[in-house]
Amino acid sequence: MKLIRFGTEGNEKAGLQLENKRIDVSAFGEDYNERFFETDGLNRLKNWLKTNESNCPTIDDSVRLGSPIARPSKLVCVGLNYAEHAEEAGMKVPNEPVLFFKSTTAIVGPNDDVTIPKNSLKTDWEVELAIVIGKKASYVNLEDAEDYIAGYVLHNDVSERAFQIEKEGQWCKGKGCDTFAPLGPFLATKEEIKDPNNLHLWLEVNGERLQDSSTSDFIFNVQEVVSYISQYMTLLPGDVISTGTPFGVGLGFNPPKYLKAGDVMRLGIEGLGISEQKAVAYK
Amino acid sequence: MKLIRFGTEGNEKAGLQLENKRIDVSAFGEDYNERFFETDGLNRLKNWLKTNESNCPTIDDSVRLGSPIARPSKLVCVGLNYAEHAEEAGMKVPNEPVLFFKSTTAIVGPNDDVTIPKNSLKTDWEVELAIVIGKKASYVNLEDAEDYIAGYVLHNDVSERAFQIEKEGQWCKGKGCDTFAPLGPFLATKEEIKDPNNLHLWLEVNGERLQDSSTSDFIFNVQEVVSYISQYMTLLPGDVISTGTPFGVGLGFNPPKYLKAGDVMRLGIEGLGISEQKAVAYK
Repeated sequence: MKLIRFGTEGNEKAGLQLENKRIDVSAFGEDYNERFFETDGLNRLKNWLKTNESNCPTIDDSVRLGSPIARPSKLVCVGLNYAEHAEEAGMKVPNEPVLFFKSTTAIVGPNDDVTIPKNSLKTDWEVELAIVIGKKASYVNLEDAEDYIAGYVLHNDVSERAFQIEKEGQWCKGKGCDTFAPLGPFLATKEEIKDPNNLHLWLEVNGERLQDSSTSDFIFNVQEVVSYISQYMTLLPGDVISTGTPFGVGLGFNPPKYLKAGDVMRLGIEGLGISEQKAVAYK
Repeated sequence: MKLIRFGTEGNEKAGLQLENKRIDVSAFGEDYNERFFETDGLNRLKNWLKTNESNCPTIDDSVRLGSPIARPSKLVCVGLNYAEHAEEAGMKVPNEPVLFFKSTTAIVGPNDDVTIPKNSLKTDWEVELAIVIGKKASYVNLEDAEDYIAGYVLHNDVSERAFQIEKEGQWCKGKGCDTFAPLGPFLATKEEIKDPNNLHLWLEVNGERLQDSSTSDFIFNVQEVVSYISQYMTLLPGDVISTGTPFGVGLGFNPPKYLKAGDVMRLGIEGLGISEQKAVAYK
């Protein structure tokens, strides 16, 4: 299944992306949130569809998409998970996953505007494969990690490099600004994705392809990342893990390229659709 | 008012700490969560009490207390916010607040056990004053910061130093382990605390006083911290900001002292009560 949420910001309803249309499944009566995943919501929804799908209204293509999952308890990110990207960022290839958090208030829909924060000169893009957790995960073994995954979603890990790197302390200042986490268009449940560790991913700015890589270049793959993080904190159903970005971010150019108001980012991952965000100035 | 939540883990109900007893206000029908603070819950509760307080059941002292607020969207922490502590940690005094996140899955009640994680040798204590946000805060001016505060709460920012400092990357690996954020006993609404920037705070391990300081030694005070963080992310009602710990953590001793199973931490802040946690091994 491909889960979507649609409607105005803060009032999103549950839907599904089918082959040729989107349908409204709000009659199922649940949002795609912690409780949904925790209570076997994916299977319950699948069963419900057997008798109800034909009565589900079609959603017009013009309707806004929100993040395909409700606000998670956390959005954990893996940094420097592609060797060539670590190099362009001027950092060493890590021996174990580097972790940081993005504020969940940064989450927006896949095609919402990205706001360049006040006083920002270095807002940058990062196409990433994100994992959605399906059940409570603590001290998970590598060989069991896949059982804890509900599915996958496209994420643009928008980052302000001066806030992230030049400000004192940890990276979170440049990672959690409002609108810095466009998620979607849809959450693909894991059976839709044959091998998450071998997916083409790309990002274009104003039509120019700047990131073009494959998750087969991961330093730490999806299973390793889930198992590793679960050694340090409990992951809850609906939590999101973003797995890092490949080569081609603005920081890596000489001189660096950063977003200005009006720029358009378009990004995609094989099997996970395409999203598009316009950069806008803070008003 | 002094807000408490009581009952078994995950089933906490709303209550109040009065001068000589605790009362159950679950008949008010709300939890102390984002929605409560967002919708002027503190004033609504105060009004409700005028006619209902006499009917509220007393809570027995033996009943467990949970965190006095429901799980927030984020738990943002300020690092190195007391000069003498920065020195003992071997780090320089920052010129601007150093920020990091604790996973909200780390939050427990004030007197719950603290679990020493698997493979941990360096679990440490940190008494801290935490701020609870009362309304949505984005780009807040310093002079307006106090308007955005609902109240204050005692926090033990338990930290695993090897995970935090010796592991590669950011601090979050050593800050968000389960049970690493005991909050409470109560949330004191801001009118109860005359000056949050001048409160005595202390922590004892097995009866020995190891931290003993005042928030008057803050490098960045409560108002500065709220205003600063709101430049980088939107704070939501019910979000928690922990303001850093003073001198006297285990890391600072020569040789360092760390928690072992059976050790008891007891900590307090003037006006915010006392909490006590026993360190236990991971089972």
